[in-house]
Amino acid sequence: MTTSPSVIVFDVNETLSDMSPMAGRFTDVGAPAHLAKQWFASLLRDGFALTAVGASRPFAEIGADALRTVLQGIDLDRDLDEAVDHVLAGFGSLPVHPDVPDGIRALRDEGRRLVTLTNGSTAVSERLLTSAGVRDRFEALLSVEDAGIWKPARGAYEYAARTCGTEPADMLLVAVHPWDIDGAARAGLRTAWIDRAGTPYPQAFTPPTIRATGLTDLVPQLA
Amino acid sequence: MTTSPSVIVFDVNETLSDMSPMAGRFTDVGAPAHLAKQWFASLLRDGFALTAVGASRPFAEIGADALRTVLQGIDLDRDLDEAVDHVLAGFGSLPVHPDVPDGIRALRDEGRRLVTLTNGSTAVSERLLTSAGVRDRFEALLSVEDAGIWKPARGAYEYAARTCGTEPADMLLVAVHPWDIDGAARAGLRTAWIDRAGTPYPQAFTPPTIRATGLTDLVPQLA
Repeated sequence: MTTSPSVIVFDVNETLSDMSPMAGRFTDVGAPAHLAKQWFASLLRDGFALTAVGASRPFAEIGADALRTVLQGIDLDRDLDEAVDHVLAGFGSLPVHPDVPDGIRALRDEGRRLVTLTNGSTAVSERLLTSAGVRDRFEALLSVEDAGIWKPARGAYEYAARTCGTEPADMLLVAVHPWDIDGAARAGLRTAWIDRAGTPYPQAFTPPTIRATGLTDLVPQLA
Repeated sequence: MTTSPSVIVFDVNETLSDMSPMAGRFTDVGAPAHLAKQWFASLLRDGFALTAVGASRPFAEIGADALRTVLQGIDLDRDLDEAVDHVLAGFGSLPVHPDVPDGIRALRDEGRRLVTLTNGSTAVSERLLTSAGVRDRFEALLSVEDAGIWKPARGAYEYAARTCGTEPADMLLVAVHPWDIDGAARAGLRTAWIDRAGTPYPQAFTPPTIRATGLTDLVPQLA
């Protein structure tokens, strides 16, 4: 990159948080563990369907809706409402990935401004980063709830740029999700795709500016 | 309904076709059967992410991309490219749901104009309805590939209305997917949600005009 971005915008779910414990929330209520991934894909599918028509609903509401559909017909060990509450509560106690604390500290030590931008709630980001001991490295935790539209719509990234008092071109979006990389690139941001698992990058989406295997691997690529 | 719609627009995948055999395509290549649902949700998630930024790619391309990601790390019994081809080829031999042939014939016998509108290819619709013996009841098989944008974006439904030489208000969209019902309702169509499994309708989406347990159950509700 010719000039280095001054503001780094992090996606939260799966990019900073390790969502694998969500599978245990499904087995807790008597449902198969593999439903966790189907549910999360369904949640985003439905959220993006609304984004495509210019509408927006809270992440937790879409998540509860999608969960009721995914759990339909499963012989749960408790009431459906209780099962939905138990699974959704899992968002509140996820750990960060092992590379996150060191990566965040190193990027902040370089003098970069760090923010988050999530399709979820800021409360979840707040708990996640506080428990990981790096909350104080972020100058703001942003949610699309204040943008009025979810990522990957352009308006969500523009909201983040406006809030940070900068231009999209001076921001770097860091995410594990190709749809987020694609949306940010179309909105004029530079992008870093975090690929911890060696997954192929989908051909249909705009490729990232940078590829890294974790946040600590991202740091030297930005120097 | 005060006046009955003259054109009935059917979604294809899962609404007319029974996609359950796709699970067998995953076991054929050495992958767990449950990945079929995760994959289809991921395919739509990624297609809608592009729809949300005003972009569009062919259904089969998004499907192949999503499949490579879903199959990542699985110990397949063949080459990944061959596995992807084998799963995608499954779309070409799906059966219709048992209620489809009688429902289609009854609706056509009432003098209604029947069309399809799929996010997939018209070739898949053509094979599906020909093998079910009802292809001749449809005056046109439409794909969003000719609209330039996927459902649930308004432009996809407007394309169908334009092609049929009618207004959205004179059309009824029939689908199993709440996101399709929601998008069609926002575009001004009336809607019929087919719920064969007793699934809760998501609160975040616009409710359907009509609810039916299958196409044969829809017929008397339109009379």
